Amino acid sequence: MPKISEKGTKMPSSPIRKLVPYATQAEKEGKTVYYLNIGQPDIKTPQVALDAVKVHSLDILAYTRSEGSEDYRKKIAAYYAKNDINVTHDDIIVTTGGSEALLFAFGSIMDKDDEIIIPEPFYANYNGFSIASGVNVVPVISKIEDNFALPPIEEFEKLITSKTKAILICNPGNPTGYLYSKEEIRQLADLVVKHDLFLIADEVYREFVYDGISHYSILQEEKLKEHAIIIDSVSKRYSMCGARIGYLVSKNKEFIQTALKYAQARLSPPTLAQIASEAALNTPDSYFKEVIEEYVDRRDTLITELEKIEGVKVAKPNGAFYCIAELPVKNSDKFAQWLLESFNFENETVMVAPAAGFYSSPDVGLNQIRIAYVLKEESLKKAVNIIAEALKVYKD
Amino acid sequence: MPKISEKGTKMPSSPIRKLVPYATQAEKEGKTVYYLNIGQPDIKTPQVALDAVKVHSLDILAYTRSEGSEDYRKKIAAYYAKNDINVTHDDIIVTTGGSEALLFAFGSIMDKDDEIIIPEPFYANYNGFSIASGVNVVPVISKIEDNFALPPIEEFEKLITSKTKAILICNPGNPTGYLYSKEEIRQLADLVVKHDLFLIADEVYREFVYDGISHYSILQEEKLKEHAIIIDSVSKRYSMCGARIGYLVSKNKEFIQTALKYAQARLSPPTLAQIASEAALNTPDSYFKEVIEEYVDRRDTLITELEKIEGVKVAKPNGAFYCIAELPVKNSDKFAQWLLESFNFENETVMVAPAAGFYSSPDVGLNQIRIAYVLKEESLKKAVNIIAEALKVYKD
Repeated sequence: MPKISEKGTKMPSSPIRKLVPYATQAEKEGKTVYYLNIGQPDIKTPQVALDAVKVHSLDILAYTRSEGSEDYRKKIAAYYAKNDINVTHDDIIVTTGGSEALLFAFGSIMDKDDEIIIPEPFYANYNGFSIASGVNVVPVISKIEDNFALPPIEEFEKLITSKTKAILICNPGNPTGYLYSKEEIRQLADLVVKHDLFLIADEVYREFVYDGISHYSILQEEKLKEHAIIIDSVSKRYSMCGARIGYLVSKNKEFIQTALKYAQARLSPPTLAQIASEAALNTPDSYFKEVIEEYVDRRDTLITELEKIEGVKVAKPNGAFYCIAELPVKNSDKFAQWLLESFNFENETVMVAPAAGFYSSPDVGLNQIRIAYVLKEESLKKAVNIIAEALKVYKD
Repeated sequence: MPKISEKGTKMPSSPIRKLVPYATQAEKEGKTVYYLNIGQPDIKTPQVALDAVKVHSLDILAYTRSEGSEDYRKKIAAYYAKNDINVTHDDIIVTTGGSEALLFAFGSIMDKDDEIIIPEPFYANYNGFSIASGVNVVPVISKIEDNFALPPIEEFEKLITSKTKAILICNPGNPTGYLYSKEEIRQLADLVVKHDLFLIADEVYREFVYDGISHYSILQEEKLKEHAIIIDSVSKRYSMCGARIGYLVSKNKEFIQTALKYAQARLSPPTLAQIASEAALNTPDSYFKEVIEEYVDRRDTLITELEKIEGVKVAKPNGAFYCIAELPVKNSDKFAQWLLESFNFENETVMVAPAAGFYSSPDVGLNQIRIAYVLKEESLKKAVNIIAEALKVYKD
C-alpha cells in the first residue's frame, strides 16, 4: 500500500473536534450537551448579507478575479479607513477565509524549516498551517497570571535565529481573549524592524473589544509599513463563518505580488460568499453595538460564575469571545472526556476544549481549558454550574 | 525590508492571465477581443443550482462539517454510482474547488523534494501547487502527432526513483482534450501497483466526452483500490466555476484520514456554494445532452476552421473543451502578445493561451497555443479567421 507523507502523519487533529464523537454519544444517551468548545457564534448573520444572495441575478456562477473584484476591495479599503487603517484596494487580496490568508502568507515568506515565533497559547490551527507549509513554530509562553499579556520582548529576541522569518500574534487573542496594548504592539514593531522580520497579526476579532479599550492594529504603526501583514476574515465579524471569506492586507508590494501568485493558482475565492460579504459591509453600526453588549454580558456572567468555583483561576478577556480557565485537575483532556462520557448533572453536561492543544510546548496548559462564550447567558450559567458540580466529584 | 521566500519567488505567474493587461489595453483602444484563453464556459449554470441559494432559510451562515455534510456526500456517492464508480460517502471529502483537493492530496502523500510524474502538456496550476507543496514535477512529454495520447509506459517507468510518490493525469485532459482509453488506464494501474505509488486522476471534465466514447475512471479499476485518488469539481460540470466546490475521492482510508486533517485545519468548505452544488446534483440529464451537443459542434467548427490554415497542426480532442494547435511561428508567447498589442482585423482580435506554460520541460511547445472553445460557434469562426489573417502578416 502506498505511504502517507511524514508531513501528513504530523498534521494535528483538531483539539476542538477530537471530543466530538464523545459528545455525539452523550446526546445519543439522552444527555443535553452545552457546546463551549467551538468558535461558531449563535449570533445571527446581518440580514443584509443573507438577503444579498437571495436576490442575485447571476446566469453563470463564474470565477471572480483571483484577488477579489476591484469594487469589493475598494469597499474593504473604506472599511479599514473607518478603523483608522490606511490601505488601498491594491494592498488587499480576498481569500477563502482567514485560513487561506495564513497559508498564502506562510508560503510567501517562509521556506522549509524556517521559523515563526508565536506567543502561546495560540489558535490551534497555526500548528496545522505550519506543518502543511513545512515550517516550525517557535513558541513563547504567555501566562494566565498576566492575563496572557505579551511576554517580555527579550523572550522573543533571544529566540531569533537566521531561520526566523516572522512573529505571529492574534489580536485580540483566540484562545486568550487578550487585547494587546499600543505599547505592546510598538515593542513588537521595534523588534521586527531591528531584525528585518515580518509581523503577522491575525485581527479577525478586531471588532470584539470591550471595556472602552480601542483596538490598535499593526498597520497603524507607520514603521511597520514594509513589515506588517494583517490576516482578516468576515467569519466572526458578521457571524458568517460558513462564507469562507478572508483578507490578506499588506503595504509590502513584493509580498502582495507573491501572495497573488498563490491566489491565481487557486483561481478565485467563492463568488456567492463574496456577494454576501460585500453586502455585509453595509451592516448598520447598531448591529455591532448590540452584539458587543451581548458578549460583554456573557463574559461578565461567565467570569463571575467561574470565579465562584474553588480552585478555578480565570484570565479576564478584553476581547474576542474566549477565555482560558485553569481547573483543579491534572489533565483537562481526560476531564473533558469524562464530562461527556461519565458525568451528568440533571441529565446535562458540557463540552469544553482542553487547552493543551493551543500550546506547542509539551506539557504546558495541561490543567487549562478554553471556553467560547458563544451561548446565551442562561445556558452559560447552567454550563458553568455543571463544571462546578463535576469538579466536586471528579478524581484525577 | 524583509524577504520573500524562495518558494514564493518560484511560484509561476498564470500563463492564462499574464496577457490580461494587454487585452485590457486593446479593449481600451476600442478593439473587440475574443477570449479563447480561459476555461470559464459561457454555458448557463443549471437553474436548479442558482435557485437553491435564492430560497435558503439560513439565520446564521455557519460552518459545515470540514468534510462536507453527510447528506451531501451521500448524494455525491449516488452520482458516482450512476457513473459506475463504487464509493461511499466516507470515501469523499468536499473541498474548496479541485484546487484545494489537489493541495490536500499533495500534502497528504508527499514531503519536500518528493517527485510526481505528470504527462505534459498539463494544467498549468499543477506547477504552482507543486511549488507551494515543495515537491518536484517530473514531466513525460506527450506529442501532438499522437493526439497527446499516453506516452509509452516505459517512459514513465524509467523516471521512477525512491522519491517518486505518485503519477498524476488529467482525464479528459486540460489542455489537450485527450481522453485516456481503458487500456491506457490499465497500463498506468499496473505500473503504480508494481511500484507502490498513488495514481491521481483529475477527472473534473468526466462529463465532457464525445464521439460515443465512454470515460473510464481510475476508480473503476479494482486493483487501484488503495492507490487511486480522484480530484473532482463542480466548476465545469455545472458551469459554476465560482462556487469553488470540489471533491477528493479515495478508497484508501489512511489517505482520507490524513486529508481530513488538512480539511479540519481550514475548518469548512463554503456553505452557500455547497447549497448550490448539492442542488446541482438534481440537474436534468437533458441539460448535459444539450451542453455536450453544443461542445461537439464548437469543437468540430474550431478544428475544421483551424485545419484550413496553412502550417497549422491541430490535435483532435475527444473530451473537455480545449485543444492544442501548433502554429507556424517560433514563439507563440510573442505572437499572442502581438495579437493583442499590434494586430486587428476589422477592429477585432483574439486572446489565446501560449502553450509553453503548460509544459514544465524548458523550450517545449513554444510554437503551440491552447484554445478553449468556450464561445459560441459564430464567435469561434470569427476568432479563427482573425488568427488566419494575423498569420498572413506576422513576422517572427
